[in-house]
Amino acid sequence: MIQVFVTGGTFDKQYNYITGELYFEDTHLKEMFQRGRSSLDIDISTLMMLDSLDMTNAHREIIISNCRQSIRDKILITHGTDTMVETARSLAEAKINKTIVLTGAMIPYAFGTSSDGFFNLGSALAFVQVLSPGVYIAMNGRWFDWDKVVKNRITGLFESI
Amino acid sequence: MIQVFVTGGTFDKQYNYITGELYFEDTHLKEMFQRGRSSLDIDISTLMMLDSLDMTNAHREIIISNCRQSIRDKILITHGTDTMVETARSLAEAKINKTIVLTGAMIPYAFGTSSDGFFNLGSALAFVQVLSPGVYIAMNGRWFDWDKVVKNRITGLFESI
Amino acid sequence: MIQVFVTGGTFDKQYNYITGELYFEDTHLKEMFQRGRSSLDIDISTLMMLDSLDMTNAHREIIISNCRQSIRDKILITHGTDTMVETARSLAEAKINKTIVLTGAMIPYAFGTSSDGFFNLGSALAFVQVLSPGVYIAMNGRWFDWDKVVKNRITGLFESI
Amino acid sequence: MIQVFVTGGTFDKQYNYITGELYFEDTHLKEMFQRGRSSLDIDISTLMMLDSLDMTNAHREIIISNCRQSIRDKILITHGTDTMVETARSLAEAKINKTIVLTGAMIPYAFGTSSDGFFNLGSALAFVQVLSPGVYIAMNGRWFDWDKVVKNRITGLFESI
Repeated sequence: MIQVFVTGGTFDKQYNYITGELYFEDTHLKEMFQRGRSSLDIDISTLMMLDSLDMTNAHREIIISNCRQSIRDKILITHGTDTMVETARSLAEAKINKTIVLTGAMIPYAFGTSSDGFFNLGSALAFVQVLSPGVYIAMNGRWFDWDKVVKNRITGLFESI
Repeated sequence: MIQVFVTGGTFDKQYNYITGELYFEDTHLKEMFQRGRSSLDIDISTLMMLDSLDMTNAHREIIISNCRQSIRDKILITHGTDTMVETARSLAEAKINKTIVLTGAMIPYAFGTSSDGFFNLGSALAFVQVLSPGVYIAMNGRWFDWDKVVKNRITGLFESI
Repeated sequence: MIQVFVTGGTFDKQYNYITGELYFEDTHLKEMFQRGRSSLDIDISTLMMLDSLDMTNAHREIIISNCRQSIRDKILITHGTDTMVETARSLAEAKINKTIVLTGAMIPYAFGTSSDGFFNLGSALAFVQVLSPGVYIAMNGRWFDWDKVVKNRITGLFESI
Repeated sequence: MIQVFVTGGTFDKQYNYITGELYFEDTHLKEMFQRGRSSLDIDISTLMMLDSLDMTNAHREIIISNCRQSIRDKILITHGTDTMVETARSLAEAKINKTIVLTGAMIPYAFGTSSDGFFNLGSALAFVQVLSPGVYIAMNGRWFDWDKVVKNRITGLFESI
């Protein structure tokens, strides 16, 4: 009933203990829905594993195309926070008649009890079930219309505009 | 903007390392909203700290009375899962014209990365902002009308009826 | 080079989210040595999975017999803290000429970042490599001779006598 | 009875959720000994907070000087793993007649249940109490003489030479 598209972002980053750098391996989404004891019918598909600062228009075309082709009309996208608003705008401009909610995390889920990711996933999953068709960002416990939000680079919080 | 009432439940239980039993100390709600980087205006009030198997009609009257008197019209209640449906029914019968969402956890938040509590809180917080006035249960990533849900005692999952 | 015998105790307890009680499933020892990136040659064997309050002389005979028959002369035993001193005494009276270190935890390893178990395992593993033949308890960052220690039931700390 | 000197290293790194980089704030050592329910008399002093790749001879002189001046003869040093062997050599060449044990972590303690730090601290604390005067490295559940160990840059494991 719900389509989840994974695109990477801090949400799914892991620590490479040899190099001391963050990197992507597999998504944690499936494990997270199990831990959340979700009983929803959820289809998870990994489109890419990217730091959102590296996301280009070509990547956004892939996301748009997948949202359009999905047979589901409720779509949750995990995405890096740095360019989440840009991708939301691209999706809105593509005029897909579905409920699309983007979410992410400020601290990787793999970093344990400091991460906001599990909370954000819970709220995004709730919003995508209830909101009318449109493109939204779910962060900081709230939802924002795609064209009425900006990420504050100093505080890391998403704010209404 | 949102009223949170804490009533206890597995959600807030802790492990007493002297007796080996679970008990209640303070609620983790404030810490959880901070970790979730919630930027909502949330008022948290602890009404009681109870295992929901110990909840009596007198306790439910306290919850009802507080929901009625709150100046907020969006109310999130943390509650043990065993009698969550009963409390939801009592609240519905009290005919309070507000959006009231009950949530809980199968594993205490204090037990770290195995707990479902942080995910449930994120989803309940989202549902309470968006659903119309009424009484709902938010568990397993879903929301249920108060009169169309039962907890399956074998699986621990909430199910539609 | 090192023999590890698992007997249960709080160390390996887990939370049953259906009944709300603690129980035993599999030991976490193997996973713990991997997480600790131990490069020692360690042989782990589960003798029993018991709350140490339920440990009888028959159980202690099994532990003694296994310590005697092991081809290793450095033996680490995980054990509940409540009767750890009694089992240490039984082992000492059996006069096995090996270094035997008992350790445990006040909070289950499965309860995440509140547990002392991972620290205790590291210290017990170190002590068993270095101490002379004898029977010891490793708790609270220290080691104790089997006949010079008691568990303080009020504080949960092991103390010299 | 035991002196702990903090010099930084991966052990104490934290994630900066604004920049996405690792950095140092305060040490976690005090909290770790409390969680480990250590009942030892431990004096913790932070000498510096450095990635060990940034450690110069001047920094090593500070460490040596503090080890020499400490009134304790059992000294545990937390240190980045990349140049831990170099610092151990400098300490050995300074010919201080104390038991000095260096330890560290491959994954920051702050990253929760994936970190090896808590286990390493337990083992280093045990080794420093029992080993004869000398300079040692405690990693991977083992102890190494300062001049018989090398870090394998591919596996991240310390190995005997």
